[in-house]
Amino acid sequence: MELRAQRHSPGPDGPVCALGVEQGQGRMVEDGARPVVPMGHGDPSAFPCFRTAPEAVDAAAEALRSGNYNSYSSCVGLEPARRSIADYLSRDLPNKLSPDDVYLTSGCTQAIEIVCSALARPGANILLPRPGYLFYEARAVFNGMEARYFDLLPEKDWEVDIAGVQALADKNTIAMVIVNPGNPCGNVYTYEHLAKASAAKLFCVAETARKLGIFVITDEVYAHQTFGEKKFVPMGVFGSVAPVLTLGAISKRWVVPGWRLGWIVTNDPNGVFQRTKVVDSIKSYLDISSDPPTFIQMKMDFCCRLAKEELVVVLPGCAVGYKNWLRITFAIAPSSLEDGLDRLKSFCLRYSKPNK
Amino acid sequence: MELRAQRHSPGPDGPVCALGVEQGQGRMVEDGARPVVPMGHGDPSAFPCFRTAPEAVDAAAEALRSGNYNSYSSCVGLEPARRSIADYLSRDLPNKLSPDDVYLTSGCTQAIEIVCSALARPGANILLPRPGYLFYEARAVFNGMEARYFDLLPEKDWEVDIAGVQALADKNTIAMVIVNPGNPCGNVYTYEHLAKASAAKLFCVAETARKLGIFVITDEVYAHQTFGEKKFVPMGVFGSVAPVLTLGAISKRWVVPGWRLGWIVTNDPNGVFQRTKVVDSIKSYLDISSDPPTFIQMKMDFCCRLAKEELVVVLPGCAVGYKNWLRITFAIAPSSLEDGLDRLKSFCLRYSKPNK
Ligand SMILES: Cc1ncc(COP(=O)(O)O)c(C=O)c1O
Ligand SMILES: Cc1ncc(COP(=O)(O)O)c(C=O)c1O
Repeated sequence: MELRAQRHSPGPDGPVCALGVEQGQGRMVEDGARPVVPMGHGDPSAFPCFRTAPEAVDAAAEALRSGNYNSYSSCVGLEPARRSIADYLSRDLPNKLSPDDVYLTSGCTQAIEIVCSALARPGANILLPRPGYLFYEARAVFNGMEARYFDLLPEKDWEVDIAGVQALADKNTIAMVIVNPGNPCGNVYTYEHLAKASAAKLFCVAETARKLGIFVITDEVYAHQTFGEKKFVPMGVFGSVAPVLTLGAISKRWVVPGWRLGWIVTNDPNGVFQRTKVVDSIKSYLDISSDPPTFIQMKMDFCCRLAKEELVVVLPGCAVGYKNWLRITFAIAPSSLEDGLDRLKSFCLRYSKPNK
Repeated sequence: MELRAQRHSPGPDGPVCALGVEQGQGRMVEDGARPVVPMGHGDPSAFPCFRTAPEAVDAAAEALRSGNYNSYSSCVGLEPARRSIADYLSRDLPNKLSPDDVYLTSGCTQAIEIVCSALARPGANILLPRPGYLFYEARAVFNGMEARYFDLLPEKDWEVDIAGVQALADKNTIAMVIVNPGNPCGNVYTYEHLAKASAAKLFCVAETARKLGIFVITDEVYAHQTFGEKKFVPMGVFGSVAPVLTLGAISKRWVVPGWRLGWIVTNDPNGVFQRTKVVDSIKSYLDISSDPPTFIQMKMDFCCRLAKEELVVVLPGCAVGYKNWLRITFAIAPSSLEDGLDRLKSFCLRYSKPNK
């Protein structure tokens, strides 16, 4: 399934500001004449007038029916999906992303969770926008980081208070977060605010991050959902100025928050995330989250030789905490299982010492 | 969709021992005559002979098509799904579970993640079986707990070494984990091993946990997948002896690990988990994981009165870290939005002080 912008239903024109608030929580009762108006409720998919593209539904239903998508995925996500997302995002970037820049997550929510966990270290702090999406604070604090708030400036279309960022940052600051287009302010940042090419470089996000030696985490879950003529500029465009982690999801633009597909993307032509082990850290967290870890460690001579000589793969016991044992799964096609056991037997017979 | 045991395809008869190992990782090449036998690979859904029930596929595809399941779920999961799971599990229990005993998760993997996070506190330790599913250790250690291993006894059908458990436990021990039916050993514990009604009470899991004052976490992701005549007995049967957290998923019995639906169930007729705040702890973790938090806190007089008098719900600014502001979503049906803004206006006019 190719990732395309949603065009087929009257999606929201502006940033939808979803905080997962449930309808009717005020315990109000409709008073007969007037229905309740849920303007606190930020999930348009609950309204029949907001529906995702029939093509998307067809593709997902078809994937279910094919039986080819029932299995475990890999920790980083299936390659074709990562490639689709890389291609889709590359359309707005100066350089082409590779599938290896993309990590699939369970919604943008888990992307935030993973990034906070991957960046946390003792004493670290992270800079967050106020007003903002408080989930960042929740996860940062859960991971032992300090959350520090810089202001968004209402009189400047909710731009980042760059002087405030500079005042907050110290040697323990890891990253700053921007939400663009913004929740809850609806800000859509200009090219100039994100990175100024000219003299007044000082007052833009990218140069500030570079000067402070911190990463930029950009939450672009509302990407392209802008008001009027405003054009969405992804922060990834400036990944060569300061390394950028872009977080996104299909939740908003495709109006399917319940489908739970999001991503973390590294926009980092200079390879800073590799060098500073942020990429390793993301991968190890993915290893111990949504997907079970792949423990295979072909260390035992027995397993290696069996694989090499008989083309039979079994797990060395150390993968389940038990040395000198093997772990064999029976959950494979029966004919294949019999074949494998036969080969295992002849392998054992071949190497077993004759009884004296 | 009612939850029923999978009957329509030749599912695995025994515990499938899946560790998420990917096929062909040994980089072996088929040698022409003989195909590779992947007996290390624990995901039967990759084989065409293991397919889930067509009814399950139809129900999921239908849910997609209806457009009614695109929205955010609640943190604990949708009520009808929790009710189905409660009813399904209650069939094997002396007491009936309520939907409130059930928390939905993204596979059994996330159930393990949540339970480890909810139980962790400084200095705590958790008792794990060896051989075992090492993901428990990974999550326990990630959450700052110490993992201590008791043995499973090969000469006793891989029963728990109860004496070992007693020797390991101390006042900082929170819980012990059993995996039943077991991965990787295929053990299926008898009623007697789990809880003895008679004299020799000492050598069973439930009484041991009671005596030590610890919880039992039972991983029943392979529930009912037993060999031959062996009958699966859920640990929840003994929830009144010692409180039990049952972890499960549709991944194995329904052969759909890629669908990512699991659960945590409290089997605790005496309400110990409520009293010791384990339930609160699970809920708060759910609040900051798969689903975004519900920040609504109707504390501001303005929002309360607006809701009461005009039936219009908006978010107080404090929910986005910004006092004395309101946050209004535009992502609702346009006619409803206009109606709401009209009412908001008349509310403001009614209360605004006349200019002097
Ligand atoms: C700024 C922001 N980031 C992330 C999310 C979570 O996105 P997802 O539903 O894909 O988990 C939301 C949801 O409202 C949001 O407003
Ligand atoms: C003992 C055990 N628990 C939990 C899991 C993970 O289950 P799920 O795929 O539902 O996340 C597995 C998967 O192999 C397992 O073997």
